[in-house]
Amino acid sequence: MKAIILAGGCGSRLWPLSRDMYPKQLLSIGEDSSLLQQTVLRLQKYIGFNDILTVTNVQHTSEIKRQLDMLGENGAVLGEPLGKNTGPAVASALEYLQRNGANDEIVMILPSDHLIKDAEMFNRSIAEACELAGNGHIVTFGIKPGYPETGYGYVKSGEALGPGFKVDKFVEKPDLATAEKYLADGSYYWNGGIFVSRISVLLAEFERFMPEIFNNLNDMKFDNGQIDYRSYEKMPSISIDYAVMEKSDRIALVPLYSDWNDLGSWQAIYEVKPKDADGNVLSGRTVVHNVKNSLIYSQKEIVAVADLENIVLVETEDAIMACRMENSQNVKKLYEKLKAENSSAVMLHKTVARPWGYYSVTDSGDGYLNRTLCVLPHKKLSMHLHRQRSEHWVVLSGEAVVVTDNGEVRLNAGDSYDVPAGVKHSLQNPQETELKIIEVRIGKDLTEADIERF
Amino acid sequence: MKAIILAGGCGSRLWPLSRDMYPKQLLSIGEDSSLLQQTVLRLQKYIGFNDILTVTNVQHTSEIKRQLDMLGENGAVLGEPLGKNTGPAVASALEYLQRNGANDEIVMILPSDHLIKDAEMFNRSIAEACELAGNGHIVTFGIKPGYPETGYGYVKSGEALGPGFKVDKFVEKPDLATAEKYLADGSYYWNGGIFVSRISVLLAEFERFMPEIFNNLNDMKFDNGQIDYRSYEKMPSISIDYAVMEKSDRIALVPLYSDWNDLGSWQAIYEVKPKDADGNVLSGRTVVHNVKNSLIYSQKEIVAVADLENIVLVETEDAIMACRMENSQNVKKLYEKLKAENSSAVMLHKTVARPWGYYSVTDSGDGYLNRTLCVLPHKKLSMHLHRQRSEHWVVLSGEAVVVTDNGEVRLNAGDSYDVPAGVKHSLQNPQETELKIIEVRIGKDLTEADIERF
Repeated sequence: MKAIILAGGCGSRLWPLSRDMYPKQLLSIGEDSSLLQQTVLRLQKYIGFNDILTVTNVQHTSEIKRQLDMLGENGAVLGEPLGKNTGPAVASALEYLQRNGANDEIVMILPSDHLIKDAEMFNRSIAEACELAGNGHIVTFGIKPGYPETGYGYVKSGEALGPGFKVDKFVEKPDLATAEKYLADGSYYWNGGIFVSRISVLLAEFERFMPEIFNNLNDMKFDNGQIDYRSYEKMPSISIDYAVMEKSDRIALVPLYSDWNDLGSWQAIYEVKPKDADGNVLSGRTVVHNVKNSLIYSQKEIVAVADLENIVLVETEDAIMACRMENSQNVKKLYEKLKAENSSAVMLHKTVARPWGYYSVTDSGDGYLNRTLCVLPHKKLSMHLHRQRSEHWVVLSGEAVVVTDNGEVRLNAGDSYDVPAGVKHSLQNPQETELKIIEVRIGKDLTEADIERF
Repeated sequence: MKAIILAGGCGSRLWPLSRDMYPKQLLSIGEDSSLLQQTVLRLQKYIGFNDILTVTNVQHTSEIKRQLDMLGENGAVLGEPLGKNTGPAVASALEYLQRNGANDEIVMILPSDHLIKDAEMFNRSIAEACELAGNGHIVTFGIKPGYPETGYGYVKSGEALGPGFKVDKFVEKPDLATAEKYLADGSYYWNGGIFVSRISVLLAEFERFMPEIFNNLNDMKFDNGQIDYRSYEKMPSISIDYAVMEKSDRIALVPLYSDWNDLGSWQAIYEVKPKDADGNVLSGRTVVHNVKNSLIYSQKEIVAVADLENIVLVETEDAIMACRMENSQNVKKLYEKLKAENSSAVMLHKTVARPWGYYSVTDSGDGYLNRTLCVLPHKKLSMHLHRQRSEHWVVLSGEAVVVTDNGEVRLNAGDSYDVPAGVKHSLQNPQETELKIIEVRIGKDLTEADIERF
């Protein structure tokens, strides 16, 4: 059995914790592991680590690899050169699996950023889905609605089919009256976006209903775990639901018996978290007085709140967001306003993951910018120079090797080193422990743009 | 004519903008000058700069001197060695004025942190007060109530007396029903805490009603502009209102015709600020969607708010506070909770004023702490050493002179310098421009406590 985890997705709905460059699936949200890591850990009970393929936009591959590595093994990641929605992503991933030795196995396709709580019940759904998929069906997991949600798509179940049902139809997000009818009807399920099928069956449906996608698979190249731009560019941007599920007559439904939440808003996060006696979810350095039914999240600084109810207040290093709980989807409006202003606060966190480790901008002002760098064991920043700035390093912990045209210098905690503008340099961590450095940049151009690589 | 500005007062009511070490009178709150500076500028139309004496706790004298210096001349500041409320502060200041050449002039005593808007109307009140004070009265300024405020003390006016009234009595903060009666009655005024009197008249009343204070004045010493601890310690902690005003039969009232606000809460700040079409006061980097009648204050980072009304949200470098507008006095409850936890966020800002300039902690972590220092023109940090840490400096702008036992080194922008643990050093700014330095501290004790001075 194989799994394809869809880990594209942008960062607007849980802003300011999520960012364009650090979307929801990469976040931990008060847990030890990220939603992506939780998804992989959940799957590992059924599927070997090496049989799990994560598909994502190339800009997230290094951070996703880092998170998968933290789980103990090298995870397979397939990079999309541009965003094309889930249809092309799934078809390309199926092609990649086939080229890398998959037989006509059963494959499970699932989002990377949903919460599924009850592992044993999930187990039962998977077993039922595999039984139907083995008989040539494409199985979707349906969640029995608990209330008339208007934010999800629905699936209408038809006649019984083995342990599940045939699917009558997929329907769009309904208005409230329609959602209430669906709830009363009893045959409607939320579409959880989890699908199980034989690889050949799904590819045959792509061939039948989406030749614009299917016909580009044969010539597709996968160099360094990345889909080639030319093949991918030709594909239409379309979801797997529209591309295949709503057209195929092979679709079956298996109920997902477990607790499920798409964590698609701050309110959804609030709902799944344990609450104190006042109905509050408090995380980080918080102080409250007469606060009820609220989510207060502090990443770094003190967040103090008095006499408010039903609010969400989220503090991150460079942005604070407050909104009414029941309108928490309007965070998107704030995100869009900031995006229109070209604010970096929708793009990046202050702490940014890199292939060699991560950095954090701690302060900046007229003519200077300070960063903290962490270089992971045995990683390096390769040879480069800056025209417009000098860099000044102080080693906080670990050992650094600085290479310039003048040779190699070793630095330990407390040592400092100045790199003048125009001087080629590389920085390496030769040790098994992390290397931490304070960097002070001084000059006219302090951005990542002023760099020449060798 | 002389003036005594009372600039004690703590930092709880406008937390997190105010702190113990940076109380309300030192804040600008969106203006170019602080409330203290505004008070001095307002007085300067009537009273020469050298006839204004500011009394404050010694821990604030250097910052107050810095703020007064910014107004162009050296302001006289009298430091209290401990807090004793306004009675001892006023009596000591009167004694100080007499010893420093004051004749039996008229003195005006006023808080440093109130807002008085209409200078011309203030002018009229002062003229009227001087007329009555010249005749031996102690004049208090009464503000005609606009609504039944329960947070202020009141003064009941009696029969007409020249341009003002005799005072029947001072009364405590009333409950709402009583405040409504006062408002309807028409003879009650808010007690603005501004008094005008001849120096000799006020001292005579201290002698008569408060010998515990008066009898300690004769032996009081004023070395380096600081009241001596032994004399001050003996005095009771009591307000000028209780000590003299409520007992004396010389009290007269003059209406303060100007707009007046004690700025005693975030709601009061909101009320005096210009508002946008949605009734919002937005300051700094803010983004809002469907927000009404709210005060959103960003000191540094982005503050984004959606779908909330009547809230106060204040962001500072190390603390974020949100509360309901009409309960904004409950900020004190948050402040007290943090104080009970010994949180530094009630004491200091990240940016801290020093006699030589100011510093800001920009980042800290395991074994390191980063600061930005600004050394003012011609100021210096005198010779000292640290046992437990090394310091690493990079000059951002200006020129630095570093003196160690090895001699003197001059540093310009982009130069760096390492001070190992145990090495004596001093840092000077020899220029007319500010010196800005990034400092990285590495070691076991990174606090201000690890210092030996020479």
